[in-house]
Amino acid sequence: MEECNNPVVKVMGDPGLQQNILLPHPPQKRGCRRCPPLHPSRQHPQRWHLPDYPGRLPNLAGAAQPAWRAAGMEGLRVGSVLLTGCDGGLGLGLLKGLLEQPSPPRHIFAACLDPQGKAVNEVALGFPNVMILLLDVTDPNSIEAAVRKVQAEVGSAGLNLLINNSSTTRRSTLATETAENMSLVYTTNTIGPLQTSQAFLPLLKKAAEAEGQREMSCSRAAIINISSILGSIEVAEAWEERQDICYRCSKAALNMLTKCLALEYGSSGILCVSVDPGHVTPPLEQGMGPVTLEESVRGVLQLLAQLSATNNGTFWDWRGQRLPW
Amino acid sequence: MEECNNPVVKVMGDPGLQQNILLPHPPQKRGCRRCPPLHPSRQHPQRWHLPDYPGRLPNLAGAAQPAWRAAGMEGLRVGSVLLTGCDGGLGLGLLKGLLEQPSPPRHIFAACLDPQGKAVNEVALGFPNVMILLLDVTDPNSIEAAVRKVQAEVGSAGLNLLINNSSTTRRSTLATETAENMSLVYTTNTIGPLQTSQAFLPLLKKAAEAEGQREMSCSRAAIINISSILGSIEVAEAWEERQDICYRCSKAALNMLTKCLALEYGSSGILCVSVDPGHVTPPLEQGMGPVTLEESVRGVLQLLAQLSATNNGTFWDWRGQRLPW
Repeated sequence: MEECNNPVVKVMGDPGLQQNILLPHPPQKRGCRRCPPLHPSRQHPQRWHLPDYPGRLPNLAGAAQPAWRAAGMEGLRVGSVLLTGCDGGLGLGLLKGLLEQPSPPRHIFAACLDPQGKAVNEVALGFPNVMILLLDVTDPNSIEAAVRKVQAEVGSAGLNLLINNSSTTRRSTLATETAENMSLVYTTNTIGPLQTSQAFLPLLKKAAEAEGQREMSCSRAAIINISSILGSIEVAEAWEERQDICYRCSKAALNMLTKCLALEYGSSGILCVSVDPGHVTPPLEQGMGPVTLEESVRGVLQLLAQLSATNNGTFWDWRGQRLPW
Repeated sequence: MEECNNPVVKVMGDPGLQQNILLPHPPQKRGCRRCPPLHPSRQHPQRWHLPDYPGRLPNLAGAAQPAWRAAGMEGLRVGSVLLTGCDGGLGLGLLKGLLEQPSPPRHIFAACLDPQGKAVNEVALGFPNVMILLLDVTDPNSIEAAVRKVQAEVGSAGLNLLINNSSTTRRSTLATETAENMSLVYTTNTIGPLQTSQAFLPLLKKAAEAEGQREMSCSRAAIINISSILGSIEVAEAWEERQDICYRCSKAALNMLTKCLALEYGSSGILCVSVDPGHVTPPLEQGMGPVTLEESVRGVLQLLAQLSATNNGTFWDWRGQRLPW
């Protein structure tokens, strides 16, 4: 078994979950005996190389049952949520997860490109608190129409939580990347969340004011941008497996947007955070990722339940671990 | 004089240049007596809030005369350089600076949108080593034509140094930012450097091979992406003065591109680095920035002369100080 030259700086991690902290953060060498996978028990180990970064929330994402049950917690309590990208994948998973919370939201707006889609309608069936909405994040008219519908439902309570989950990608390498890919992916992954956040700002502000006595949290008013570890410039995760320049650049830019939103909207009581759901494989390859959809959803919702003012403008993964930009 | 709540973690800096390191990195409060400007002697002090970040090259940028003279050094020695965005501003400044090096490049390709432009022709007048080229980084045909011209000049020696300096911006706030701005600025600032780097890769590889006995450096083969401190998500510089979401997002994405280029081209001996020239004000407001054009050019060229393999895929400012993403 060969050994790589990655300088192992520090080893830390959860009990039973060995995690190598390597600096600098080169791609992990396969087969190197100093680079054991983070999850030795899994077929597709996580290959993160995190610098020693401050911040860690209680990690309950790996629990075999929903985190709030394992911990005797209440889960995420929030009056109204709008979730984009509910056509499938993580969006659909988060929708299911929200419905399974011990105290589900009074209003869940499941925004998708095809409101007649079978999958989203099956998940929403029998839940009067779910409204399926058309929302194309690249089309301002579509966003404005969604805002009007949400406004009509939530009234003066406003919208508590906007989850910008819509995302797209194109497989590419540095040799094959094109301007067309770059532009298309940026439009959906970066400009989309910007336009959606701008349009829902009045409703988010209403919620922040209505819950003005509470600390900043996802229950009061928040924008969660679903980013990706592939958007971390520092970590440069999985470079050998997927270069996808268009996707990485769009998510790094989305992280910058998160920071900008936090700086601007924070004073209105709106929390803004980037979240890596860990589910780095695209829909076509579901099940090949280092984390299952269920683990990801459980972890993300647990994370959202714990975020507070001190986390404004930061980047977290589904395990409750803070990520570097 | 009021006092802000920014936690001052550490004070460090060059002799005579007090620098506050604040964590977390909120906007500095004007008038706070715990937040002295970095350059008390200047009218427009730098307002950076850097975390404690490893890496610092000898800082000679502030010297009153060219750094290589002050330090008895040789300056930047490089066979051939292509510099985009030579129509004015920093590009023109870097062109002048390259010509003033003790050992100027044998070939300087001054790429610009208007090769008949008065300014660039005045600077190049009398210098047979300068070739003024049309190069629109958003137009692949224009890039390919430039590659052919450069190829014809440099032959088997290849191109040593590509400086992706072309850049644009639109003034905006979160409230006024538009999809049009976002897309336009991304096309020039992020997709442009990608396409230019892809197109010049064969010539850069030639240079890296021709100088195969040397360590990685700007003299052997390198891509320098002119980024900005405004592209650092961690620092979030000058938020109160200029939000310019389109610009910040495009430069954060450019920094991701730098990392990707470093990971991919590094094995071919090509060094890739992001540089903040410190000249954060756009051409229209020249002279209002925290650093003069001359200081910026002097510092950037001094930095380039010092970069080596260990700096591949990192982010530096014109003062030789490493920046966080």
